[in-house]
Amino acid sequence: MDKISISKATLGRIPGYLDFLRSLSPQKVPYISATTISKELNLGEVQVRKDLAMVSGAGKPRLGYEIEFLIERLEDCLGRNKITLAVLVGAGKLGRALLQYDGFQQFGVKIAAAFDLREKTMSIDSATPILPMEQFDLFCKEHNICIGIITVGEGSAQQVCDRMVESGITAIWNFAPCKLQVPSGVLLQNEHLALSLAHLRNQMSQD
Amino acid sequence: MDKISISKATLGRIPGYLDFLRSLSPQKVPYISATTISKELNLGEVQVRKDLAMVSGAGKPRLGYEIEFLIERLEDCLGRNKITLAVLVGAGKLGRALLQYDGFQQFGVKIAAAFDLREKTMSIDSATPILPMEQFDLFCKEHNICIGIITVGEGSAQQVCDRMVESGITAIWNFAPCKLQVPSGVLLQNEHLALSLAHLRNQMSQD
Repeated sequence: MDKISISKATLGRIPGYLDFLRSLSPQKVPYISATTISKELNLGEVQVRKDLAMVSGAGKPRLGYEIEFLIERLEDCLGRNKITLAVLVGAGKLGRALLQYDGFQQFGVKIAAAFDLREKTMSIDSATPILPMEQFDLFCKEHNICIGIITVGEGSAQQVCDRMVESGITAIWNFAPCKLQVPSGVLLQNEHLALSLAHLRNQMSQD
Repeated sequence: MDKISISKATLGRIPGYLDFLRSLSPQKVPYISATTISKELNLGEVQVRKDLAMVSGAGKPRLGYEIEFLIERLEDCLGRNKITLAVLVGAGKLGRALLQYDGFQQFGVKIAAAFDLREKTMSIDSATPILPMEQFDLFCKEHNICIGIITVGEGSAQQVCDRMVESGITAIWNFAPCKLQVPSGVLLQNEHLALSLAHLRNQMSQD
């Protein structure tokens, strides 16, 4: 069940591979070639070979990849057999949008709860509870939370980040448009939406 | 007012440079060195020199950068003197979160209107109007819209994308978790949030 070092681009193609492979009947034809996969999914054959090599090693000469084994390996990459739990702090518009986004589960991550600095309880049309910050540390420890998502404003982001680190979180996905300090050993991934849009605008003006 | 080819990382540091430079009094001391900037902003000096070289060329020997000129050039990079208008299609949770996010303006992009496939009018606590799709093409042409933001679901994303291209939009920022086909000459930037989270999870499990 070890996860494999794969690029974000490869990771993004895995759900497509899985959907296709699951539509086959490995009882009848147990192997499939990279050529067939690449034609079916309209991808370059070299890319398919590289992706699959990262995930499950090379195919067998003249046979290709064993479909059932490949499906298992691809599922492992997505962590489908071992859901990773995350918490989110900041149940504003963006936080709620993420809570109601149902695309995370297919990549093996589930937001177990959201927390908010301001209000004790909030009604929301989502299955995920929104809890007061007083319960944060205990919840993270009890549920063995590894990932923290920061959707508070710039002013509270560092404080929330510190609290996450103290509660044992080792990977932080930050949407606040500011630099955060994390101790070594904690992964930080910034999602600066305004910057992405500005970058698109600047690329456009090159044409 | 030409925009300059700068990396996303450099772009992200520009608001910080600007805040600092604007706090100075160029009437008294018209020049500043890369060393001073790097110390003040806690950045590497080499990085500061690279960033500023991209934006305004090298500083003058023994004097440094002329502050007022540097501010102007940095502002040009952010497009602050020429706001680029965008429209958003899909006024669901994520779309509304983006509408109410106030970080875009500092990077010179403004969401002029949102459109929704389902409802004719919607109440929202935002200054940006939410309009029915029937008005889309005319609005884009009248306001000379260059950027389209897609926050509809996977099922309608290609249709919305096509409509944007037909309306003269040349840069698309796509949040739907699917591959879109755009003609050559149209920029497409995908923001696959689930994939970003999955990538963070996978990096974590390498440790």
